[in-house]
Amino acid sequence: MVNVPNVKLNNGKEMPLVGFGLWKVPKESAADVVYNAIKTGYRLFDGAFDYGNEKECGQGVKRAIDEGLVKREDLFIVSKLWNTFHEKERVEPIVRQQLEWWGLEYFDLFHIHFPVALAYVDPAESYPSGWQFTDGTVKTVNAPIQQTWEAMESLVDLGLAKSIGISNFQGSLILDLLRYARIRPAVLQVELHPYLVQPILVQLANGEGIAVTAYSSFGPQSFLELEWKKAYDTPTLFEHPVVKEIAAKYGKTPAQVLLRWSTQRGIAVIPKSNSQHRLVENLDVCSFDMEEKELESISALDRNLRFNNPTDYLGTLHIFA
Amino acid sequence: MVNVPNVKLNNGKEMPLVGFGLWKVPKESAADVVYNAIKTGYRLFDGAFDYGNEKECGQGVKRAIDEGLVKREDLFIVSKLWNTFHEKERVEPIVRQQLEWWGLEYFDLFHIHFPVALAYVDPAESYPSGWQFTDGTVKTVNAPIQQTWEAMESLVDLGLAKSIGISNFQGSLILDLLRYARIRPAVLQVELHPYLVQPILVQLANGEGIAVTAYSSFGPQSFLELEWKKAYDTPTLFEHPVVKEIAAKYGKTPAQVLLRWSTQRGIAVIPKSNSQHRLVENLDVCSFDMEEKELESISALDRNLRFNNPTDYLGTLHIFA
Repeated sequence: MVNVPNVKLNNGKEMPLVGFGLWKVPKESAADVVYNAIKTGYRLFDGAFDYGNEKECGQGVKRAIDEGLVKREDLFIVSKLWNTFHEKERVEPIVRQQLEWWGLEYFDLFHIHFPVALAYVDPAESYPSGWQFTDGTVKTVNAPIQQTWEAMESLVDLGLAKSIGISNFQGSLILDLLRYARIRPAVLQVELHPYLVQPILVQLANGEGIAVTAYSSFGPQSFLELEWKKAYDTPTLFEHPVVKEIAAKYGKTPAQVLLRWSTQRGIAVIPKSNSQHRLVENLDVCSFDMEEKELESISALDRNLRFNNPTDYLGTLHIFA
Repeated sequence: MVNVPNVKLNNGKEMPLVGFGLWKVPKESAADVVYNAIKTGYRLFDGAFDYGNEKECGQGVKRAIDEGLVKREDLFIVSKLWNTFHEKERVEPIVRQQLEWWGLEYFDLFHIHFPVALAYVDPAESYPSGWQFTDGTVKTVNAPIQQTWEAMESLVDLGLAKSIGISNFQGSLILDLLRYARIRPAVLQVELHPYLVQPILVQLANGEGIAVTAYSSFGPQSFLELEWKKAYDTPTLFEHPVVKEIAAKYGKTPAQVLLRWSTQRGIAVIPKSNSQHRLVENLDVCSFDMEEKELESISALDRNLRFNNPTDYLGTLHIFA
């Protein structure tokens, strides 16, 4: 089985550099997908309340543990706090609920999903509730990030999360969080691919000892199934001559080159795939090294092009302005 | 004398849409420059601790008032909190000091200059102290923006500032501040020109009732005297065919077109000039209207090109990542 290296977090814990992303995995197939990914060698699973499949993902984990494929401590389970639970009294109860869905006693890593505080929606009434309130509007509440972060810190105190992280945060907001954090974020998860390279954000995180996880490593590819025009209008990275040429040189696929472009720089990746051979391929993205100038030629494809942006799909919550 | 319209702030106060920017005005000439600008018709002066000329600017104001050119209430005096005074106990004393330099009892508007908290430097030892600590390093302190903002709010309570604002803030940090602000920021001052259009940031501010002031409206021009390579390497906007063509059509100068591109959209501007005829010209930038498609053709010059960025000149404090 493929050997996946770890990245050491700022709290001493180790996180696999390659994991499986659970966004857009239908709950109907999630148990099988997770079970099969574990069998294939995946150990990190990147979930979230918002993905709507945590119970089923947990079933896949349970099956693998019951069959003796892995032990709990071999796995690195990641989940995220949805925007509707930013008020301090909301955090612990929903994390306990998410853990119950997963059938786990702790998350290895728990992120703030977005720096956005929305009005509470009871999961019993709407799950996953997404960005809109029950009346269809986007309804914010005044829970500052500091309040939410303090509740996140208490998850570590309670043993409900081994590490805590942030996601979709900009530089100045990260720097502000670091001023009051009692427990520093271990990981920053952001959209990151050759069309959105974000070198200074990575530099900031590196300098502050925060590990980076890239999501949507394939760029527009991740958003085609959402039928977003912007994704259709952007040339696929799989066919980009720069990527294809490097892939040919190393005898790898374009997907592997795109993932290695991150992992070679110590950035974790969380691809998903519906195909078994791609599942195997995506896991094997730490066993070859590109030349520095090749990494740079991929970075030079930067267009500062972001797909996952509330400004685009909601027309408000301008967190990337 | 030219009639300059006001923009109404979210607290009911009125702010002139055109003012005089005091950055890089040498203290040797600042008194004369301010006095002469008042005589020319300027009413808003945009100063800052960091500009190192507040005492001299105040002398210019005093002379104009003493001679009966204006009354205090005719003027709109803006200043800013430097990074070294972000700790809550530092704010009121330095504002009282800055007011004393100006010879004023209140500022019309007082900004947080940057979302950066640096270690205190006694102005008696180093003024203006800039970004570096006395030992030459960049030394941060853990004063969260919320702490600083609460101290800013108390300036309003004390009558030391009629309005308070922010400067050089990104979207997600503004949204976070709005969650805890008892007094909302009246104005956001940011670098804004046709090479750095920031449409979503402007949209955010408009939507939240925060007025926008553009600094460095001429783009690279503002940074030539600092001898920054990036400014020299960027084609001047004064000679850009799009700008020149529109200027010719309306019988205005390129500078007037660049300023009107902001003011026509309700964005305040704060140019400075060392020449009397440009001083007059720059004030007269609300008396003609361009067509919507002309404004858009100027906005289309956007390169997301920022000049005033600590990342570039310090290699750290990545507030725009």
